[in-house]
Amino acid sequence: MSDKTRVRRLPERAVEDREAVAAILDEAFVCHAGYVIDGRPVVIPTLYVRDGDRVLLHGSNSMGLARAVRAGSPLSVAVTIVDGLVLARSAFNSSANYRSVVIHGAGILLDDAEKAAAFEVIVDKLIPGRLAELRPSTPSEIAQTSVISLTLEEVSAKVRVGGPGDDGEDLSEPVWAGVVPTRLVFGEPEPDVDLADGIDLPDYLRPYRR
Amino acid sequence: MSDKTRVRRLPERAVEDREAVAAILDEAFVCHAGYVIDGRPVVIPTLYVRDGDRVLLHGSNSMGLARAVRAGSPLSVAVTIVDGLVLARSAFNSSANYRSVVIHGAGILLDDAEKAAAFEVIVDKLIPGRLAELRPSTPSEIAQTSVISLTLEEVSAKVRVGGPGDDGEDLSEPVWAGVVPTRLVFGEPEPDVDLADGIDLPDYLRPYRR
Repeated sequence: MSDKTRVRRLPERAVEDREAVAAILDEAFVCHAGYVIDGRPVVIPTLYVRDGDRVLLHGSNSMGLARAVRAGSPLSVAVTIVDGLVLARSAFNSSANYRSVVIHGAGILLDDAEKAAAFEVIVDKLIPGRLAELRPSTPSEIAQTSVISLTLEEVSAKVRVGGPGDDGEDLSEPVWAGVVPTRLVFGEPEPDVDLADGIDLPDYLRPYRR
Repeated sequence: MSDKTRVRRLPERAVEDREAVAAILDEAFVCHAGYVIDGRPVVIPTLYVRDGDRVLLHGSNSMGLARAVRAGSPLSVAVTIVDGLVLARSAFNSSANYRSVVIHGAGILLDDAEKAAAFEVIVDKLIPGRLAELRPSTPSEIAQTSVISLTLEEVSAKVRVGGPGDDGEDLSEPVWAGVVPTRLVFGEPEPDVDLADGIDLPDYLRPYRR
């Protein structure tokens, strides 16, 4: 069986490899966190980072997510990177290329001492290099913030790569087939209107220029 | 109060306008759907389109989402477009620019007749212009597919735009502040390895070229 055939037959697969899971989690920075309140699901987007064998979800104390964790709701946290639209020769076989991780478990609301450290990890992972430039967070700021830690124990990942998985009899259909790739790009950093004179774009933001 | 001050004070706001909600839903094409099974939340990514006053979620019959809807689970469906990282002069005020919609309600699994029509709507909205080129879906393909319809009744939307919302005393911090914009871009369409000679890139895919 050629590699091409294998890819055609297995375009979508579960990923078990811890490093592959970590790579997906490290590339994205927005997750969708689901919790249960009164038997109903609620899904919200929030910033997160991976920190070793856990993810840290950032929020405010007032957000429903923090309240739900406090009330004991288990969590489902999904991270999805969309890599393209897959245009098969039939609607049925059309799909998307993506890499996704879903983590289940009981989140833990960090206490103030843990939060102070976690807060620094979040800043450092989101914008590497910036942490050293920022003033320390105040106790009041830390108290107003919530950080939820969720361990990477119950984790599943799925990846779809490659071209369309058409059925053999569709290969003669007279229609274009292939992939329209997608990716998230960073644009030129835009200085704040109040930025003081003489503060140049820091080196750690140069990689974000296109 | 200047416009600048207003933006600084209201960077994050709820959106009530139906057209603004529709515009967010029409720009994205992957949602995160949450459901409840045995009292636990599950969040998965899936393709969707907006069709008037409903969204149509695309999946397979075997997926947990379809089973959960069949079993009566209410849904929470979130769509998020990330527009940038907001670098404030403190970690506390740092944030992200985004536009997000969350829809709650009981999803409906469409029957085969409804699915055939919905399937065409999904293809037509995801890749406008392509539907006319594709062979019709077969009854077997339609039977294997699930389409969940969720009405846009219980909808909330939130948008954050603009620069960092620093506290006044932080404006003199000697640190760069501003926004690193992000956006999802489409790349050059990649033809399938098996694409027959003489099938050129169709006009409806030209807008996807960068």
